[in-house]
Amino acid sequence: MRTAILELLKQKAGEYISGEDISQTMKVSRTAVWKHIRTLKQDGYAIESHPRLGYALRKNTDRLLPAEIKANLACTVLGQEIYYFNEIDSTNNQAKKLAVDGCPEGTIVVAEAQGDGRGRLSRSWFSPYGKGIFLSVVLRPPFSPMEAAKCTLMAAVAVNRAINDVTGLGCGIKWPNDILCQDRKVVGILTEMSAEIDAINHIVIGIGINVNIDQQDFPSDLATTATSLAVACGRPVSRIKLLSIILAELEAVYTEVKKSGFEPVLAAWRAQSLTLGRKVNVHGIDRNFSGEAVDIDDDGALLIKTPQGIERVMAGDVSIRPASSS
Amino acid sequence: MRTAILELLKQKAGEYISGEDISQTMKVSRTAVWKHIRTLKQDGYAIESHPRLGYALRKNTDRLLPAEIKANLACTVLGQEIYYFNEIDSTNNQAKKLAVDGCPEGTIVVAEAQGDGRGRLSRSWFSPYGKGIFLSVVLRPPFSPMEAAKCTLMAAVAVNRAINDVTGLGCGIKWPNDILCQDRKVVGILTEMSAEIDAINHIVIGIGINVNIDQQDFPSDLATTATSLAVACGRPVSRIKLLSIILAELEAVYTEVKKSGFEPVLAAWRAQSLTLGRKVNVHGIDRNFSGEAVDIDDDGALLIKTPQGIERVMAGDVSIRPASSS
Repeated sequence: MRTAILELLKQKAGEYISGEDISQTMKVSRTAVWKHIRTLKQDGYAIESHPRLGYALRKNTDRLLPAEIKANLACTVLGQEIYYFNEIDSTNNQAKKLAVDGCPEGTIVVAEAQGDGRGRLSRSWFSPYGKGIFLSVVLRPPFSPMEAAKCTLMAAVAVNRAINDVTGLGCGIKWPNDILCQDRKVVGILTEMSAEIDAINHIVIGIGINVNIDQQDFPSDLATTATSLAVACGRPVSRIKLLSIILAELEAVYTEVKKSGFEPVLAAWRAQSLTLGRKVNVHGIDRNFSGEAVDIDDDGALLIKTPQGIERVMAGDVSIRPASSS
Repeated sequence: MRTAILELLKQKAGEYISGEDISQTMKVSRTAVWKHIRTLKQDGYAIESHPRLGYALRKNTDRLLPAEIKANLACTVLGQEIYYFNEIDSTNNQAKKLAVDGCPEGTIVVAEAQGDGRGRLSRSWFSPYGKGIFLSVVLRPPFSPMEAAKCTLMAAVAVNRAINDVTGLGCGIKWPNDILCQDRKVVGILTEMSAEIDAINHIVIGIGINVNIDQQDFPSDLATTATSLAVACGRPVSRIKLLSIILAELEAVYTEVKKSGFEPVLAAWRAQSLTLGRKVNVHGIDRNFSGEAVDIDDDGALLIKTPQGIERVMAGDVSIRPASSS
């Protein structure tokens, strides 16, 4: 009923429709109409009420409500099941539990805020209410567990394409899967898998995006290393539009990988990379060293040219050295 | 209260204790005593009631109740938290959800029966009520995801030691982690991990053991390939004793690996192996071939000598060819 009333308001495209008309069309009481309108307002829809003219939808909600996601969705696998939370500890944790319980491939978890948002290696991810995209996608790929690392590159390629498409910014990928804008982090991706020795049960791709966060709202430890798309663009970015394009790009690239393997994705990753050709410092689990990032190999590992030869990095932190220090 | 009454009965070692004495010692009514005794009987404790003499514990329960597990436990990490189910879909699924929710390392899930017990690659695992051990253990090892395969070898070594200790049978390990008795399967181990690219979140080791299943009770597709410890021994095997020794052996070998690495475990695995030195058929994901299993390497992969050279097998099925066909 609420969705139907919203549909009616959307059809009027900002014109007023009287409570009486809604009541008659929907065959519900004026009081029921009023209550639904109140809930829609609480859901973030800017609806103007006029005592004589009735109701007019002035502005769509900016919340990532399942109905809005579905209305914008151009996918056949991703987003067919949507779990939406005002606030949740971590969308990845929720997605992992849904996956264990057998949710279909493509199920997504979206939250307006995360109480305990996480990045790689248990680091926290700044997740303020309504200002970011906090999204987890469940995939059940027919890959071997050894190929899981490449799924993270796949996600980075899809998200970077979507961001550049929507914002026109020239963002790029820092190995393995951070997306940077003007040398500052705007996206983090956390890929987690559940696997047997021989087979992947499922993969959860967690995507955190700084969309409309003001620069001064970042905590002090991120103040000089992070930014948001809105800051970089100088204008707010539609989260719902960005989310729907991310899902479409991710579905496209995932479908391509299942059909043709990872080679095209690795090529796209190389083209979008900010790391290749740069001097980097590697902070590994048991060693630190420096060199020039020259390529990624077929497993998605970063290849680094050092005086001692080519080093292969699969895990650990890689920082890009400022151009002046090279 | 129930545990205290049980303790009182156990202290009497089969002698009668009157309802009146229990009532006075415990400071509860005779009716309350009677109700607790009834519940204890339902839990599988054989308690004799005599109108004049009172109650006597004739036989301990054979159920794997948390209180019984704790009473037999010789561990400081494993089994400190126990989740017990009369029947559950799969102990591994339950353990995975508990692990996502942050349960401590060493948490175990035990069930008398599984409605949807699973082995490797989504195969089912025969899980009749009260006749097997269906156990999952949550570990949070500081290993890389690449080392997860070796955890399955570690579990096989621990379980095989426990079984041979308790039963005196000469069971051995078929690569990677089945335990065979007289060429028939008595144990299957399903290791599942949740991991980021760089780090393991947790590992769930699922252990299914055919303990007291009658040979004729196996489904027809297992009739010639599976057996139980009781069939092989010619007498019932105490599940609670076996379970507690498995936990102790697993904790010992896990502690050793964390301290000294996997080398001692791989050596123990080699010594307990039924596969090494045998002609085997390999049914891989994308190829089939035959050869002689000569060793496992540092990653736990099986090395097979073929006319074309040494083949390395990490996944897929390996069947041991009967000695006569070699």
